[in-house]
Amino acid sequence: MNFSFDLHKESCDCKARLGTIHTPHGDIETPVFMPVGTKATVKTMTSGELEEMNTQIILGNTYHLHLRPGHDLVKEAGGLHGFMQWHRPILTDSGGFQVFSLGALRKITEEGVKFRNHIDGSEMFLTPESSMEIQEALGADIIMCFDECAPYPADYEYIKNSMERTTRWAKRCKEAHIREDQALFGIVQGGMYRDLREISARDLVDLDFPGYAVGGLSVGEPLSVMNEVLDYTVPMLPRNKPRYLMGVGSPDYLFEAVIRGIDMADCVLPTRIARNGTAMTSQGRVVIKNASYKRDFTPLDPECDCPVCKTYSRAYIRHLFNTDEILGLRLTTIHNLNFLIKLMEKIREAIKDDCLMEFKDDFYRKYGYNVS
Amino acid sequence: MNFSFDLHKESCDCKARLGTIHTPHGDIETPVFMPVGTKATVKTMTSGELEEMNTQIILGNTYHLHLRPGHDLVKEAGGLHGFMQWHRPILTDSGGFQVFSLGALRKITEEGVKFRNHIDGSEMFLTPESSMEIQEALGADIIMCFDECAPYPADYEYIKNSMERTTRWAKRCKEAHIREDQALFGIVQGGMYRDLREISARDLVDLDFPGYAVGGLSVGEPLSVMNEVLDYTVPMLPRNKPRYLMGVGSPDYLFEAVIRGIDMADCVLPTRIARNGTAMTSQGRVVIKNASYKRDFTPLDPECDCPVCKTYSRAYIRHLFNTDEILGLRLTTIHNLNFLIKLMEKIREAIKDDCLMEFKDDFYRKYGYNVS
Repeated sequence: MNFSFDLHKESCDCKARLGTIHTPHGDIETPVFMPVGTKATVKTMTSGELEEMNTQIILGNTYHLHLRPGHDLVKEAGGLHGFMQWHRPILTDSGGFQVFSLGALRKITEEGVKFRNHIDGSEMFLTPESSMEIQEALGADIIMCFDECAPYPADYEYIKNSMERTTRWAKRCKEAHIREDQALFGIVQGGMYRDLREISARDLVDLDFPGYAVGGLSVGEPLSVMNEVLDYTVPMLPRNKPRYLMGVGSPDYLFEAVIRGIDMADCVLPTRIARNGTAMTSQGRVVIKNASYKRDFTPLDPECDCPVCKTYSRAYIRHLFNTDEILGLRLTTIHNLNFLIKLMEKIREAIKDDCLMEFKDDFYRKYGYNVS
Repeated sequence: MNFSFDLHKESCDCKARLGTIHTPHGDIETPVFMPVGTKATVKTMTSGELEEMNTQIILGNTYHLHLRPGHDLVKEAGGLHGFMQWHRPILTDSGGFQVFSLGALRKITEEGVKFRNHIDGSEMFLTPESSMEIQEALGADIIMCFDECAPYPADYEYIKNSMERTTRWAKRCKEAHIREDQALFGIVQGGMYRDLREISARDLVDLDFPGYAVGGLSVGEPLSVMNEVLDYTVPMLPRNKPRYLMGVGSPDYLFEAVIRGIDMADCVLPTRIARNGTAMTSQGRVVIKNASYKRDFTPLDPECDCPVCKTYSRAYIRHLFNTDEILGLRLTTIHNLNFLIKLMEKIREAIKDDCLMEFKDDFYRKYGYNVS
């Protein structure tokens, strides 16, 4: 198994950590933000462009790739790495999140989840075993146990049953998973209930996965609730293994997660808001369609040195959005991903220099967040 | 006036020519194909990517840029060059073609054309003088006289009146045009009538423009008709000035134009069919959505060395089109533009080596065109 995690440093003023994850497709410096490439493409971007901006690892979505083009075809193409010509690490989710999002279209049993897919409505069945089979075909470096991401809010009984089933499914995933060159992560569930998180973490740690995700967060709860759950959940996880917070990608959520000991996070947010014309900048969000940018010939973010900010003006990008030009979506996407990747680099620097909390307060002030 | 044309060579077996156009933003080796950047962007492409593929000159559309973002704003941004950050030559059309395409929405008088624009339907008026004013604000290196591109087919009287008015408008354009760093081209009209083309060419040559376009072709007529018109029209134009055929961009039309003495051509075809999933390749067109490419892990064009063909497979690009991913549009666009730009490079090589007709026959055979 060529997967391991080196913990280099723990902050003195918070729980942030500095580490390196070793995978068959290279190393990942943590804390890391992972752009999402749902259907074998980070929307609008080539793999070469992602490399140029120092993207260390990307995500693929098992559910979508299973439907189109099909995991067999991806396997034939040399796995996701060969298919999309991305030669650095990849993580695939389990398919669970998308399947559970289908709401009324799916039915959960102990065996797995029966659902009608969103493309042609035909009935499909996903189980811990089939999720492993698909993820092995996709060939990511890190793969995830098939879990239920429970809704928020949900009552204690629902979350308890769901969490216990997720743990039983995790055991089945571990038994079904064969490929030695993939690290299978467990996912801690338990909603916003501390005792359920404790049981989930304890049972999954017993199964000795090479890494752990905290699931069921960033599902609509306030940031303070997420922080509270992380405050008690992260310390239940092994110190010497990477910790992955699923579905988080705004600067404040990333900061709050990192200072609570999270090493990895992913989210469609930076790329999705980019395509709606919103840029993340050092001074907060810029909604590029606003009339105030019509004759603004400065860059999206004057403090940014990404290829977009070095070249194009707000007025030009605004024009592209107003005239439905694809280049507009590309430019804001490139900028937002650069912004988050650079932010994580600065966060790693700050951990190294023992000044993360200071850096966070400075960032919050400029971005327009409340400084607690 | 820093615009000039050097004629290096004329073919012995056809009328093809090798030349260099000198402009304030650099030189252009001819014959040249010019990608179209309607709204200050060659759709899906950054200016940097266009440079990397050795694009020598691009087009901008006066009508579209006048409407959005407005030529005043573009002027403030440093002209089209500054606005879109493209530092090589640009040519703008006169706005006439788009205005005449509006059909029932426009009314032609001696003074100019009254029309309702396609964005908000408000009434606008375009004249030779306002076309010059807009094109001067846009700041292209080569600008075009305001002309009527008459429909096909059209009767003799209509074409005669239209052509004569176009010539009167050309005089007004010449008088209105001030900027010394822009070359104003005349446009020969006259439909498919030899005597009208003769009158048009004679009168425009008298006005001594630094370059001439052949307009009113590629409007739905068969290739044989275009060839016939070029056969008699091109020799009416001065040998020592560049000749531009408007609206031509398929390989066969480009070959036929070049061997008849055309130096420049433009068309949305390569970028438009790219976005529909059609690639131009050395073996003819590839319609990437076809089921036969589902498991085809070879490049779009095995003989192409563009960044797309060096990296991605037909199966991957097909998947991107099937899942509506923007990257698909980008990859076929990059490939098609590369294909035409490389084709023009090879055509220039063949003229130099006195083997253009041979090269053309070889190309036609492989591409699937009839060899005449």
